[in-house]
Amino acid sequence: MKIHIGILGLGTVGCGTLDVLKRNAAIIAPRAGCEIVVKRIATKHPDKPRPIEIDKSLVTADVDEILNDPDIKIVAELIGGVDPARDYVMRAIAAGKSVVTANKELIAKHGVEIIAAAEKAGVDFLFEGSVGGGIPLINPLRESLAANRVRELLGIVNGTTNYILTKMTREGSSFDDVLAEAQKLGYAETDPTADVDGFDSMYKLSILASIAFNAPINIKDIHREGIRGVTARDIEYAKELNYVIKLVALARQHDDGGLELRVHPALISAQHPLANVNDVFNAVFVRGDAVGDVMFYGRGAGADPTGSAVVGDIIEAARNLGVGGRNRVHHEPTHAPHIRPFSESKTRFYVRTQVPDEPGMLAQIATAFGQHGVSLESIVQKKSHEGIAEIVWMTHDTSQANMDSSLAAFEKLEAVREVSSLLRVEGN
Amino acid sequence: MKIHIGILGLGTVGCGTLDVLKRNAAIIAPRAGCEIVVKRIATKHPDKPRPIEIDKSLVTADVDEILNDPDIKIVAELIGGVDPARDYVMRAIAAGKSVVTANKELIAKHGVEIIAAAEKAGVDFLFEGSVGGGIPLINPLRESLAANRVRELLGIVNGTTNYILTKMTREGSSFDDVLAEAQKLGYAETDPTADVDGFDSMYKLSILASIAFNAPINIKDIHREGIRGVTARDIEYAKELNYVIKLVALARQHDDGGLELRVHPALISAQHPLANVNDVFNAVFVRGDAVGDVMFYGRGAGADPTGSAVVGDIIEAARNLGVGGRNRVHHEPTHAPHIRPFSESKTRFYVRTQVPDEPGMLAQIATAFGQHGVSLESIVQKKSHEGIAEIVWMTHDTSQANMDSSLAAFEKLEAVREVSSLLRVEGN
Repeated sequence: MKIHIGILGLGTVGCGTLDVLKRNAAIIAPRAGCEIVVKRIATKHPDKPRPIEIDKSLVTADVDEILNDPDIKIVAELIGGVDPARDYVMRAIAAGKSVVTANKELIAKHGVEIIAAAEKAGVDFLFEGSVGGGIPLINPLRESLAANRVRELLGIVNGTTNYILTKMTREGSSFDDVLAEAQKLGYAETDPTADVDGFDSMYKLSILASIAFNAPINIKDIHREGIRGVTARDIEYAKELNYVIKLVALARQHDDGGLELRVHPALISAQHPLANVNDVFNAVFVRGDAVGDVMFYGRGAGADPTGSAVVGDIIEAARNLGVGGRNRVHHEPTHAPHIRPFSESKTRFYVRTQVPDEPGMLAQIATAFGQHGVSLESIVQKKSHEGIAEIVWMTHDTSQANMDSSLAAFEKLEAVREVSSLLRVEGN
Repeated sequence: MKIHIGILGLGTVGCGTLDVLKRNAAIIAPRAGCEIVVKRIATKHPDKPRPIEIDKSLVTADVDEILNDPDIKIVAELIGGVDPARDYVMRAIAAGKSVVTANKELIAKHGVEIIAAAEKAGVDFLFEGSVGGGIPLINPLRESLAANRVRELLGIVNGTTNYILTKMTREGSSFDDVLAEAQKLGYAETDPTADVDGFDSMYKLSILASIAFNAPINIKDIHREGIRGVTARDIEYAKELNYVIKLVALARQHDDGGLELRVHPALISAQHPLANVNDVFNAVFVRGDAVGDVMFYGRGAGADPTGSAVVGDIIEAARNLGVGGRNRVHHEPTHAPHIRPFSESKTRFYVRTQVPDEPGMLAQIATAFGQHGVSLESIVQKKSHEGIAEIVWMTHDTSQANMDSSLAAFEKLEAVREVSSLLRVEGN
C-alpha cells in the first residue's frame, strides 16, 4: 500500500523531514505498514538553495495543489507561525486529511480549536515535533503515561537560552557577550526575543500542560520571565551554593486541582537530573502519581531531530490510516483548568541585595522578611565594597504574595539600597 | 462503552496495576475513550494478604474463568516466569484477546512466537512494563522514534545492581557487604543471581534491541557478565580517572549491519548522562541517526511504576479496540540479525594488574600489549606494597580478540603476577 503525503514549507524542518523520509525509507515502510510517498511540496520560494537535494518536479508555490488533492491523505505543516499556517491546517482537516505539525506557536494559540476540528473530522492531528525537537514527550504523555495523574512538569525546553546559560556558567561571561556570540554562530536569532524572553518556552509549556492535565491552557495564564536579568554574579553565587541557573518551564497541579504555570530562570540543585542538561540539549522531568519521576532528554531542535519527530508522527498517521484507527487518542481537553493565582504560588527564593555595611542593617532586613511571613534558610554575606555589602538570602518555601510584600517593605528600609536579583529555586 | 479485562497474577505488579486502575479511574476513562472494568482476577493464592483492598468477588483460582470468558477483551499477564505464563498468553491470543504483560523473561525467550501469534490473530500484544518499570521506552521506540535507524542503545536497566554499585561507590564498601545489606532491606532477592549475574539485564536488552533493530534477538547472542567481580578498589580507581562503574546493557549496530550485544560492568565517564543515574533508578540512552542522543530516565521497578506501564498498555489496547485499530504497530521482526562475533567487538579497556616492582617490568607489559595490537591511552601506577606494584592500564579502542591474546601472552610473562580486573569503558 502507498500513502501520499504533502509537505507545506521547505525551511529547516521541512528539509530535515524530507531527508529523514528519503534516507530511511527502507526501514520506515515496514514500520508504517505502507510506503510513504511525498507527492507535493509547497513553498513560497521554490528556487531558494537548500541543504538537501529536492526533486524539483514535486515542488509547487501553490498550496492548493496539496490541500485540494484528494489523493494526499497526510499533510505536514512545517511553515511555522500562525498565518497562514492556521488556515492551511484547518483546510486540510476539513478536507479529511490527517495533519502533522511542529508549529508550537500555532498549537499554543489555536490548539483547542484545531484539536476540536480534527476530532470532529475524525482525522489525526499530531505534533510531537512542537516541543523538545526529537525527544519523545507528547506521545509518551498521551500513551505510556496515560494512567498517571501528572503532578508536575519541570523542563528545559529552549535550546538557545540553555546554550547561553551554559556558556555563562562555564566561562563566567555576561549575558550580552554570550548572546552576541550565539547570534554570530547562528544559535540565536537576530531578534532573540522569542527565545530569551521566554515566549518559546511558554508556548511549549502550554502544549505539554494541556496534554498532561487534559485542560486547555491559555498562554495568558502562564507567568513568564526571560533570562536577560540573569547576571554572571548570580551564576557565581548559585555555583557556590551548589546550584545552577536554568530557564525552566514549570506546571504543577496541586491537590485542590489548582494549576501553577510559570516560565522563568531558576536555581536548580546541582544534584537534580536537570542540572546536567547543558548546551542546546532539552529535558523534561515529569512527576506522575504512579510512575514517580521520569525524565526525557535530548536535542531540542535542529533539522534532523525535529525531522525525526515529524516523520514519527507521519508514520503514526499512516498506521492509523492503514488500520482504520484514526483519531484513536482523544486529547480534546476534558475540563477548564483552575489556574492558581500567581500571588499564591509558593517557592523558595534567592534574593541578592545591596546593603550599607553598618550595624543593624542585616537585622532590619531579616525582621522585614519575618514580618511578611518569609522564613530564611541561609544567608551569604561577602566582603563589603565601598561601604556596601552584598547579601544573598535563600528563603524557605514562600508565597509570591509574601515575597512581594517583603519587597514592597524594602522600599522604605534604609537597609536595602537595591534588590539586585530575585530568582526562584525549583526541583526537589 | 465498557471494556472488560482480566488480570492473571496478584503479586507486586498485579496489585500495583489494580491500584492504579482504581484510584485513577476518573482520568483513565476519558483518555481510553471507554470505561475499563476489571471483571476477574486469577491467582493461585486467593487468600494471601495483599497491600491493597481487593474485591473478593472478582478473585478466582481458575484462570479459565478469564481465558474462556468471551466478554473479557484484554488480559494482563502479571504472573512472571515462563511457565505457565506462556501457555496462558498463547491461549488468550488464540481466543482473540489483546494481551498486556510485564514479563521480560517470557518475551526474551518466546517473544518471536508470541508476537507472530498476535499478528496472526490481529490482537495487541503490549509489554511496556517489561523494561524500565514505568519509563516509556518500548512505545517511544516503536512510535516517536520509528523514523530512526538506531545506532546504539546503552542502558542501566537493573535497579538492584545499580543500587549495589551506587552504594559501593558512595561508601567504599565491598560487593558482598552491600549485597547482604540489600538482601536484608528487600532490594535484592535471597538468590540474587538473576540480578547480579546480569540475566535480568540480558532479557531486557534483548527486548529493546529486537524493537530498535526489527530483528529477533536470541539471548544466547548476548555476551553477559555480572557485577560479582567489581571491587571497591576498581571503583576507587575509576573515580580517580573520572569514571563511575555501572552494569550496562549495550546494543550497537555497525555500518555493515553487524550487531554487538553485551551486558557487563563498564566504566562510564562522569560527564556522561548515565553516570548520574543512581540507586534503583534506570535509564536508557538511545542514539538514532536522525534524533541524535536521547535518554529516558526513571524508576525501573516497583508496584506503582510498573503498574503505570501496564495500565498505559491496557489503555492503548482499549483505545485500539474502540476504534478498530488493533495490531496497528507491526513489530514482527523483519530480518534475522547479523551478530558480530564477540571477538570482533571493540571497546576501550581498563586492566588492573599486579606487577613485581623491578626494573623493566612495565616495559615488558607495554611491549606485550603493543605486539598484540593494543594501544595504550594512560597508565596509573601506585606505590608498591611488599614488592608488588599495582598498575592500571587504560587502552584505546581495541578488539576483544587483541585483548584476549594480550591476556594470553601475560600468562607467560614474569611481569604479570595477576590480572586483577578487566573492565570495559563505554559511553562517548
